[in-house]
Parts: sequence; structure tokens; C-alpha cells
Amino acid sequence: MIEIRRATTADAPGIAAIIMPTIRAGETYAINRYMSEVDALVYWLAPEKDTFVALDDGVIVGTYFLKANQSGGGSHVANCGYMTSANAVGKGVARAMCQHSLEHARARGFRAMQFNLVVSTNERAVKLWQAMGFKIVGTLPGAFSHPTYGDVDAYVMFQRL
Amino acid sequence: MIEIRRATTADAPGIAAIIMPTIRAGETYAINRYMSEVDALVYWLAPEKDTFVALDDGVIVGTYFLKANQSGGGSHVANCGYMTSANAVGKGVARAMCQHSLEHARARGFRAMQFNLVVSTNERAVKLWQAMGFKIVGTLPGAFSHPTYGDVDAYVMFQRL
Repeated sequence: MIEIRRATTADAPGIAAIIMPTIRAGETYAINRYMSEVDALVYWLAPEKDTFVALDDGVIVGTYFLKANQSGGGSHVANCGYMTSANAVGKGVARAMCQHSLEHARARGFRAMQFNLVVSTNERAVKLWQAMGFKIVGTLPGAFSHPTYGDVDAYVMFQRL
Repeated sequence: MIEIRRATTADAPGIAAIIMPTIRAGETYAINRYMSEVDALVYWLAPEKDTFVALDDGVIVGTYFLKANQSGGGSHVANCGYMTSANAVGKGVARAMCQHSLEHARARGFRAMQFNLVVSTNERAVKLWQAMGFKIVGTLPGAFSHPTYGDVDAYVMFQRL
């Protein structure tokens, strides 16, 4: 049973344990893979983001943030980033966080959600987001430099709320 | 004859005269249209941006910035924002700035350029970017809240360099 709640500063070590391996791998997020742990936490817990943790039996197994994707005329579209512990893959953590984020976005009055750069080789994520109602609305040719595969396509995914 | 050179802090008033009317109109950029002039200049001249001015007979008639669109695995894709004086529309200022930005992006080693949110009602811009080699690679449904037309589509435009 996955519980999702707001992140607090006390969660920083648990969040770092989730996000640092994903950032270091450099395979799924357009983030500097060599950034320090402090910079990564500052990024993930930035004031303009609502950041949540997912717990399985009290242990942090995932974390996500939600923010406005753009300012001004684009501020009704939400954007999220999700990361799950390698130990918890297949337990429905990402699905639970995505479901939670869609509800949170609706509650905050967002009218759509957009993912700006879903790496095409991250097939598991692409399929999950599609199952959660997102459509691929754009393909960015070679827009992500993958450490193993070189320049690969990335998708823009979108759904109205 | 349009001359394009790097912006300096001495250009701030000339840049503000270009960007403030566009920001206040709120029709083309996903920027808070009520932001202060200082905040607008901080945004336009941010350290991670290369900012240029276009001059016609010594007068600033346009300005643009170029930056990496994403970090990490997305840092080989450039992003730009261009604004032209209402008094100089039709003089080829935007075209000259776009041409300059493509050359500058190549010189800096970027391998592609992406516009994340081209408002569909900004037909003049869409046509110009297409003429400059950009393709519409995605359509974001209702992703821009236009002050007159309400939620309108926005395009993701892209070209490899």
C-alpha cells in the first residue's frame, strides 16, 4: 500500500537516495548528471514546486514534484517529474504518484498537464504515461543525448485535465 | 541595414522599450504580463542567456536571447526568444535576428534549436520560423491562455543545425 504525502526537509536524505542514482545515470532526465547532491535537492525541492514522497511501509520509495510548466499565458498547464527507487520498480509507485499528481493538479486549478521531454528509450515511462491518459503530441528529433545510445528522440506528452 | 551585436548593460533602456509592450500585451510569450520592468530585464539578460540587440541606423529595433533549452542530455538543443519593436515590423528585423541566432547556435556547438511554445494565433511568427527552416513537431492543445481569444493551441517548433 503506497502512501503519498508532502515532502518535508526531514525527507531530504530519503529523497536524495531516490533521485541521485537517476540523475547520475543520465538516461531519463535532462539534468546535469554530475550535479552535487545539494544542487539536486535544491532543484527537486525548489520553492515553485510542490514536492511529494511516496512511502511503502514507511520507507520512501518514490518522489515527485508538480509545478506550472510556464508562466503567464502558460501557467494553467502543470508539469511534473517523478522518480522511483530501483528497488521498488514494478510495485505501482510511479502509477500511484502520477494518479496523485493529476488529482493534485486538478485541485490546484490546472487545466492540463505536459511533460516536455520524455526520452523515447524510456519505454516503460512512455507506456505508463499513455496508460494514465497522456498522448504523444510531439516528437523532438534527437533532442536527448543518451549516455549509451547517443542522440535519441524525445516526446512531448500532454493531457487536458 | 540591420546590425546585430551583443547586448550590454547600457542597452537596458532600449531593450526595455522593446520587450515591455510585448510582455504587457501577453499575446505571444508565456511570461507574466504584469512583471516589473526590472524583473523583465533580469529575465531577458539572465546570465545563462546570450542576449543580442538589433539596430537600425543606431536605434535598437529588436532583441533576442539564446540559451540551452535543457540541461544535461538536452543541452545540445538551443532555445531563443525574439522581440521586435512595433515600429519596425516588416523591416526584416526578426528574420535577421533568427538568421543570426542560427549561426550563433552553430558556432557554440548546438546541434538543434527548439521553440517550446509558439502561440498559434501568432501566425506571422509561425510562418517566419517555417521559412527559416523550423518544422512544427508538436501541437499543445489549448496550452496558451490568450487575453482576447482564451485558450489557444501552441506549437513546438524544431530544427536540426
